[in-house]
Amino acid sequence: MFEIGPSLMCADLGNLERDVRELDQAGVDFYHIDVMDGEFVPNFTLGPDIVKRVRGITQKPLDLHLMVNSPERYVSMFADAGANRIAVHAESTTNLQGTLSAIRSAGLEAGLAISPATSLDVLDYLYDVTDYIVLMTVNPGFAGQHFIESMYGKISNLKTRLTECGLDTPIEVDGNIGAQTVPECARRGATRFIGGTSAIFRSDASLADNVEHMRALFAQVMPAS
Amino acid sequence: MFEIGPSLMCADLGNLERDVRELDQAGVDFYHIDVMDGEFVPNFTLGPDIVKRVRGITQKPLDLHLMVNSPERYVSMFADAGANRIAVHAESTTNLQGTLSAIRSAGLEAGLAISPATSLDVLDYLYDVTDYIVLMTVNPGFAGQHFIESMYGKISNLKTRLTECGLDTPIEVDGNIGAQTVPECARRGATRFIGGTSAIFRSDASLADNVEHMRALFAQVMPAS
Amino acid sequence: MFEIGPSLMCADLGNLERDVRELDQAGVDFYHIDVMDGEFVPNFTLGPDIVKRVRGITQKPLDLHLMVNSPERYVSMFADAGANRIAVHAESTTNLQGTLSAIRSAGLEAGLAISPATSLDVLDYLYDVTDYIVLMTVNPGFAGQHFIESMYGKISNLKTRLTECGLDTPIEVDGNIGAQTVPECARRGATRFIGGTSAIFRSDASLADNVEHMRALFAQVMPAS
Amino acid sequence: MFEIGPSLMCADLGNLERDVRELDQAGVDFYHIDVMDGEFVPNFTLGPDIVKRVRGITQKPLDLHLMVNSPERYVSMFADAGANRIAVHAESTTNLQGTLSAIRSAGLEAGLAISPATSLDVLDYLYDVTDYIVLMTVNPGFAGQHFIESMYGKISNLKTRLTECGLDTPIEVDGNIGAQTVPECARRGATRFIGGTSAIFRSDASLADNVEHMRALFAQVMPAS
Amino acid sequence: MFEIGPSLMCADLGNLERDVRELDQAGVDFYHIDVMDGEFVPNFTLGPDIVKRVRGITQKPLDLHLMVNSPERYVSMFADAGANRIAVHAESTTNLQGTLSAIRSAGLEAGLAISPATSLDVLDYLYDVTDYIVLMTVNPGFAGQHFIESMYGKISNLKTRLTECGLDTPIEVDGNIGAQTVPECARRGATRFIGGTSAIFRSDASLADNVEHMRALFAQVMPAS
Amino acid sequence: MFEIGPSLMCADLGNLERDVRELDQAGVDFYHIDVMDGEFVPNFTLGPDIVKRVRGITQKPLDLHLMVNSPERYVSMFADAGANRIAVHAESTTNLQGTLSAIRSAGLEAGLAISPATSLDVLDYLYDVTDYIVLMTVNPGFAGQHFIESMYGKISNLKTRLTECGLDTPIEVDGNIGAQTVPECARRGATRFIGGTSAIFRSDASLADNVEHMRALFAQVMPAS
Repeated sequence: MFEIGPSLMCADLGNLERDVRELDQAGVDFYHIDVMDGEFVPNFTLGPDIVKRVRGITQKPLDLHLMVNSPERYVSMFADAGANRIAVHAESTTNLQGTLSAIRSAGLEAGLAISPATSLDVLDYLYDVTDYIVLMTVNPGFAGQHFIESMYGKISNLKTRLTECGLDTPIEVDGNIGAQTVPECARRGATRFIGGTSAIFRSDASLADNVEHMRALFAQVMPAS
Repeated sequence: MFEIGPSLMCADLGNLERDVRELDQAGVDFYHIDVMDGEFVPNFTLGPDIVKRVRGITQKPLDLHLMVNSPERYVSMFADAGANRIAVHAESTTNLQGTLSAIRSAGLEAGLAISPATSLDVLDYLYDVTDYIVLMTVNPGFAGQHFIESMYGKISNLKTRLTECGLDTPIEVDGNIGAQTVPECARRGATRFIGGTSAIFRSDASLADNVEHMRALFAQVMPAS
Repeated sequence: MFEIGPSLMCADLGNLERDVRELDQAGVDFYHIDVMDGEFVPNFTLGPDIVKRVRGITQKPLDLHLMVNSPERYVSMFADAGANRIAVHAESTTNLQGTLSAIRSAGLEAGLAISPATSLDVLDYLYDVTDYIVLMTVNPGFAGQHFIESMYGKISNLKTRLTECGLDTPIEVDGNIGAQTVPECARRGATRFIGGTSAIFRSDASLADNVEHMRALFAQVMPAS
Repeated sequence: MFEIGPSLMCADLGNLERDVRELDQAGVDFYHIDVMDGEFVPNFTLGPDIVKRVRGITQKPLDLHLMVNSPERYVSMFADAGANRIAVHAESTTNLQGTLSAIRSAGLEAGLAISPATSLDVLDYLYDVTDYIVLMTVNPGFAGQHFIESMYGKISNLKTRLTECGLDTPIEVDGNIGAQTVPECARRGATRFIGGTSAIFRSDASLADNVEHMRALFAQVMPAS
Repeated sequence: MFEIGPSLMCADLGNLERDVRELDQAGVDFYHIDVMDGEFVPNFTLGPDIVKRVRGITQKPLDLHLMVNSPERYVSMFADAGANRIAVHAESTTNLQGTLSAIRSAGLEAGLAISPATSLDVLDYLYDVTDYIVLMTVNPGFAGQHFIESMYGKISNLKTRLTECGLDTPIEVDGNIGAQTVPECARRGATRFIGGTSAIFRSDASLADNVEHMRALFAQVMPAS
Repeated sequence: MFEIGPSLMCADLGNLERDVRELDQAGVDFYHIDVMDGEFVPNFTLGPDIVKRVRGITQKPLDLHLMVNSPERYVSMFADAGANRIAVHAESTTNLQGTLSAIRSAGLEAGLAISPATSLDVLDYLYDVTDYIVLMTVNPGFAGQHFIESMYGKISNLKTRLTECGLDTPIEVDGNIGAQTVPECARRGATRFIGGTSAIFRSDASLADNVEHMRALFAQVMPAS
């Protein structure tokens, strides 16, 4: 029901294979990989070579998060690299419908990522081409930020809209996801959780323990239905 | 006299720590780290988190190659991450003098990277703020391209210009650097060699053997003086 | 009541005068002319010289569709070329109100073009400066695409909003408009139909027959009121 | 209750100190300073040096209005120059939440400026980081334009939304604010009024008289509550 | 020896097939087709659909002139449309070497277009990937401008540089090419002449006569050798 | 022979009229007005309203320095505001020849501004449309920087090039122009001097004294001829 996707930009980038193998073993559900262009967000992270490398290590879904302008230019590059899902930002292109459709045409799941300030109205005519929604709970660009409180209400609003459309599109939350935030996000309708420095990659425990701890949080909640 | 700098985008990105330790052991001189923005070049590679991680593994110089528009925005980010040298592209900013000066002010060596088509006249008023020159021998953006033959003449022309100015600024060559190209580049004046898939990371030998083989190539040549 | 506007990018570009004369004879209502900039959409089509030339052939309204960034720069150029109407995309400028007002000030009808993903909320404060709405039923940029099913609902929603405002602003549909789509679009409130390769310029019949066939489709429907 | 903020781009730019001293004396509430970049709007006006200079003359709040792309780049520059409030345009950045938060983190009040065409839905997830709203009643870029009639309804709609959220966020109106428009704006909920060439800087009376006249307009209305 | 290439943007755009057939008959050597993006130059002209259509009429080379930013994005589109040659502007991309190489890899001739202000040093490292040079004798963007006198010297300088390299790369001149300018351009080394409103499409004579008249101009000169 | 142009961005922006009147009285030769866009340079300064205001105070030439991208968009705006000269940056547009020509066509003197890193080869085909050259001796964007030593040689090189062309085009130097730099600049060929915080606006003396002091520096040198 609930899924955990470690954010690989928070892994030990010197030993990514080791971390991925441990996480596979610990039963994570997918891997989240952030791509940044220094324009849409002021940072740089990972690229297609990392995706290819991780593809060679694990069978689990690779869930890409493109924080880049005009992401339509890069759908095929990341599909070829081995991605299973690609999310693009609602704020990053004037051709959202076509970009989501192109991701699907490439045989992948199409995700719509929504920055904190962005109205949910962007979804109005995209429900039918959106396989999952990445609801940003911090501003995209950097690990280590604080969860934005008003995003709890946004999860609820999104869940309500989806339910009204008779849809069960997964809501993926990304940004400061940890013990303090997982239960409330889950209660409001999130089902996919990106684990970064606040959860999966906390340095005070092993990856396996961190995964187990995160999974334990789900037990507290009955998901929204 | 001649220096070898492995290009980390060609390393095993699943086991970067292991590769860096082996390369350190093999006596490489510095590490070359490529940053791409999907705009200046149509690809994405590594970012500041990788730089920080590598900084924790090795004492050798980290030589950054920013293939990004308006790189002045990112000098302090990469300086903070642990870079020792930052090269920016002559084609990527209208404020080259200020950007090179800013790199120096941050306590780093300032490099000027020059794409294949770019005239050496860009150096006319930059000699005094340029600590090294990255002469691209392929078009920036991707590993695995062919060496552009006319770049041999460009190395010679650059060496001549530097000599005429009484300068000994190192010439770093980047792009398809291997057994076929190292000797001629060295004869014409290059002294720093970026080793990628054509040399240091050839899969048919160990990293140590590849480094040794590359160093052996230098023995054949008397450098330009 | 219903109007047909052939899209001249689908005409025989080698014999535009002939096609326009035949279409005039066949009683089309206006001509639709697409302008693309290779940035807002990844294609190039027609420009002001074509507009001027067509202006010299026909008295019917020339309905321009600017698929270009910052179209405010080009209003006067196309007005001077002989356009009667100019539609600009909601997604292409941050000064929509001013651009629509400028089109009117130039003595033309101002159209707002809305890409498939765009929320109708963009109209909230533009009703009073919008003479017609181009509702894209495919993503802008290329002929020959499939009608996006969710656009049917969007036509209805738009019609409802207009009616609630007491407005009768024409709804122009553009993209894969033909026998399969015209009746449903008309039933939901569209009154202007852009005819391209799916209708007016089908190669299996004459232009006159194609126009007649398209007009016959309208007979099936009672328009929304 | 109602506040007057003269727009300094309309002051006598040859004698700004004199005008500011007179306006201080006349009891204006704050100063509005417009910054333009020639990109977001096609004009250039004032910059940080003017802000610093005005800061040295008056103790009243300096209310900056950034009509520039990617204003997040300039928050600290204007904070350092002495601004008390910075408003950024909803249309000018894809990181609105972060930019407003950054303004607050710098110790200033964060304003959201909304161009005439922009839907109020941009506020949906920004109420908690927005200290005031600049509702543009003309298109940004130039003094001397006509008030856009539909903006009256927009003020009411905004006031309603704020009230529904239990908020009292000030509504600042900017553009052709004068005798013809102040009462109606005030009745609908605006409380801060930017005075330009239509009011404070009318050449047919002294600054003091103009301020007094503007204040007299408020007497006519009971504010929305 | 000398070649004439009518510029199709100056043809009768209502009867392009007729004009092309007449020009074919009159023995022109190739067709010049201008593509503009409203950004690199402030105008719009022709696109791939026109290229395809002309390709269906004539066997002569189609010589495309891309006046667009980042033309590397459009090489394959225009190659597929039937172009034989593509010229890109030295000022329009930071990857000139790669773009020219890509045009060749697509099986076409690669041209380098040089705007009036641009130094010939851009050619320094491009001679080996440039099949022809389009030397602009007016600023790109519009027909009907005056020949820039200093371009005569530029033709000579270019011819000298090519000769010094032992090259015979054709020099194509574009802009106000007619009776007043052809002889001097030819004497200085130009061999390809783009004929627009000043020559091939003068309205006071037939296309055939205009072509003949232009060819007669060549008889006066002994080309540079 | 030598001319002094105070940079108004360094004047007392609260009392510009007073400063301009004092400077007029002190016999300065022209006024230099900087315009910045926050893109070409990371700062904002003055705009057309200031130009208009200064135009109303003095008869001396107003010398504009546009540090903005695509300055061709703003030539007529600043001409209308009262400028006598407009300089645009060689690095700021791909249509330098057309922009300089447009400035002249508007009846103004056309200046070419050259940033520290830029090669003098940009002048190769612009001598005949350039009325004066602004040689930046600091990087554009901010007052208070240090003179870049290599710019002395650049002045000499520029003077040599002009002399070789038989031209006497004035060389205007801008950036940290004061007692330490004026004599050497003048000896090498500069004749117009922009006075900012290092000279005309030094706070330790009156404007009149500062002008007199600057003029005294010229007495030391015999200009290049």
